[in-house]
Amino acid sequence: MSEETREDIGAYVRRVALASREASRGLRAASGAQRNRALVEAARLLHERRAAIKAANAVDYGAAERGGLAAAMLDRLLLTDARIDDMVRGVREISAMEDPVGAVEGVRRPDGFLLEKVRVPIGVVAIIYESRPNVTADAACLCLKSGNACILRSGKEAMESGKAITAAITEAVALAGLPAASVQYIERTEHQGVTELVRQSGIVDLVVPRGGEALIRRVVEDATVPVIKHFKGVCHLYVDRAADLAMALEVVENSKMQKVGVCNTLESLLVHADVAAGFLPRIASRLERVELRGCERTRRFVPRAKAATEEDYAREYLDYILSVKVVDSLEEAASRIERYGSQHTDGIITQDSRAAEAFVAAVDSAVVTVNASTRLADGGVFGLGAEIGISTDKLHARGPMGVRELTSYKWVVRGDGTLRR
Amino acid sequence: MSEETREDIGAYVRRVALASREASRGLRAASGAQRNRALVEAARLLHERRAAIKAANAVDYGAAERGGLAAAMLDRLLLTDARIDDMVRGVREISAMEDPVGAVEGVRRPDGFLLEKVRVPIGVVAIIYESRPNVTADAACLCLKSGNACILRSGKEAMESGKAITAAITEAVALAGLPAASVQYIERTEHQGVTELVRQSGIVDLVVPRGGEALIRRVVEDATVPVIKHFKGVCHLYVDRAADLAMALEVVENSKMQKVGVCNTLESLLVHADVAAGFLPRIASRLERVELRGCERTRRFVPRAKAATEEDYAREYLDYILSVKVVDSLEEAASRIERYGSQHTDGIITQDSRAAEAFVAAVDSAVVTVNASTRLADGGVFGLGAEIGISTDKLHARGPMGVRELTSYKWVVRGDGTLRR
Repeated sequence: MSEETREDIGAYVRRVALASREASRGLRAASGAQRNRALVEAARLLHERRAAIKAANAVDYGAAERGGLAAAMLDRLLLTDARIDDMVRGVREISAMEDPVGAVEGVRRPDGFLLEKVRVPIGVVAIIYESRPNVTADAACLCLKSGNACILRSGKEAMESGKAITAAITEAVALAGLPAASVQYIERTEHQGVTELVRQSGIVDLVVPRGGEALIRRVVEDATVPVIKHFKGVCHLYVDRAADLAMALEVVENSKMQKVGVCNTLESLLVHADVAAGFLPRIASRLERVELRGCERTRRFVPRAKAATEEDYAREYLDYILSVKVVDSLEEAASRIERYGSQHTDGIITQDSRAAEAFVAAVDSAVVTVNASTRLADGGVFGLGAEIGISTDKLHARGPMGVRELTSYKWVVRGDGTLRR
Repeated sequence: MSEETREDIGAYVRRVALASREASRGLRAASGAQRNRALVEAARLLHERRAAIKAANAVDYGAAERGGLAAAMLDRLLLTDARIDDMVRGVREISAMEDPVGAVEGVRRPDGFLLEKVRVPIGVVAIIYESRPNVTADAACLCLKSGNACILRSGKEAMESGKAITAAITEAVALAGLPAASVQYIERTEHQGVTELVRQSGIVDLVVPRGGEALIRRVVEDATVPVIKHFKGVCHLYVDRAADLAMALEVVENSKMQKVGVCNTLESLLVHADVAAGFLPRIASRLERVELRGCERTRRFVPRAKAATEEDYAREYLDYILSVKVVDSLEEAASRIERYGSQHTDGIITQDSRAAEAFVAAVDSAVVTVNASTRLADGGVFGLGAEIGISTDKLHARGPMGVRELTSYKWVVRGDGTLRR
């Protein structure tokens, strides 16, 4: 890249960021009704512009196919009518959610004044993602709902789809009388654009990377703006010695099979030695489509299991593969989860309430489950509404991150000439 | 610095960080009573070890004096009996606070399971500060209270004082049966130590820099661990056309004079043109000790005011200096606050409730005051207990940051074989 191009991209990204900053003032002043109007119009326009969006997606898809993109990636990129219906339904659901902005969360009456803690938008949010075109609509609409200006930057393979979807949303924004720059889409595809974007401290308030580990690590490395990470989910279930094995069969099967390519799917199974003989052959026949990679004891009970390596236990397969380990205690299970897990979602299956409580206390994951499928770890299932992702960070937002987590708060002091003594 | 030294420091910091990580497990498992016992013992030992702490401080002070440290910095460094009393009282107050850990903050009952949101410690917190020795006790005890292991790194001029204070606290930690590495103090003074510390992603969970802008910017630039910034406070008061001028005199005087060297002190005064003639001469005579730097209109009413430069309006003086500007509207005041302020604490003085609400909505600062002193922006005054600082960030914690803001949460799903359909 020439020096000139690099400067061009820097200047372009800064211009976009400053326009977002300016728009965020207008969004902060807008009412919830006005923001909702933009969302209702966005749902309508995305529905009406279906043909144009599919045509743009066909351009992306064709180029990606010719470029030899892997089948799983091509599938992520594809927009079908059903997926556009889902996208439109998602936007309608966001518009129907409660307004997260303006709520007075706490009132105190210290000496001589009234103190309120009030929810406010964060300001300018940058979302950096890869090839799923529906993220464009989801992320833009979650930001609009929460009063944030957003800057979207997708992978280059989804660029035409992203532009077509953003065009519908920015038209909706204009119809609602909101600032034009409320939703902006960065078209330049060089990685330099991301680097510049995540260094706009004081202009951009938050970066949310959504994608593979490599993308997230690069963003964290470069960023001076705060980042909320949505890392991988290496989710575990531990089948305790006091487990109801019939229940364990159902929960393990559901956790692994209900949807295999997502971050809350089961990747590693831990089984107490006392129940290994009774449980492992049965779960192996339930999961006949799944390749099992196990420890020596596992392979004694399940001859078809391959030998697991150390790396296997830390992997997010997102596939019909499961690592399996026989453990001698709950403590061993918890310490393996700490070592190999990703602090996303980890659970125990047991009828022993003391074991359950010990597990909940020992395992420091965003979501800890007891006698429940890991697949329940989801903002929608939790009743929190649409989510922008599942945070594996501990700061600000942990686990499902929805519109409330896209807000901050401010303190309002109301006095009558109140002084500090 | 030789390559060898650099590697030494890297290895040393990593060893410290890993020991903290391990200690954080023990702290997570400890009860609130056990953590409080450590705090009670710490208060006792800090009181008893007063002579040793003062002797260590004398070493620091002597070296700093010989090294030509500025008077204001020397004063920050000095530990008097009164300041040690304050430190001990602070630790006792922290021990008396409500336990922020373990509270179930929200319970939902989605289909088929019980969902709890539970407060948990963040894990490992690094605090990087400068020369005030009392920060060592404050920060360590706030972290103990909230169940976090902490790594303390002060400026080299306060190193002996910091070691003496830490020695008392780690003895208290041992008496309470908590892990020895719950509180650690980094002794190496090279800046390389800070750089290594703020890059321990996955081991250190949070970095809180406390100090001047240069320190904070360097930490933000280097860090891969999340940082909560406590930047400067360029606090404003706007005297509206509808202000009660007698109240305005009191509030402005208190905001500027009650304590001059702190982040919530008043640094810039904005006065509506309609009341400038009536207000400016009176406030100028009230603030006779204060150097005023004003705009042309200000200087018409206050001949002793010097001409303010652009930079004057953005400065955090922490001194008997105040910038003054006459404005023509509330909107102009709000836009100046956005441009020159630091989103810390900014207020309006008015009897017009519409003007007050417009100001509260327009000004995006951590604390917004109406008819009240900026000096009220304080965790203690707010009734939130001792604070580790006042965050000018918008993520996680905004404004006064106390023990609750040193916690995170986890989601606990309690099912009875609950699956995702």
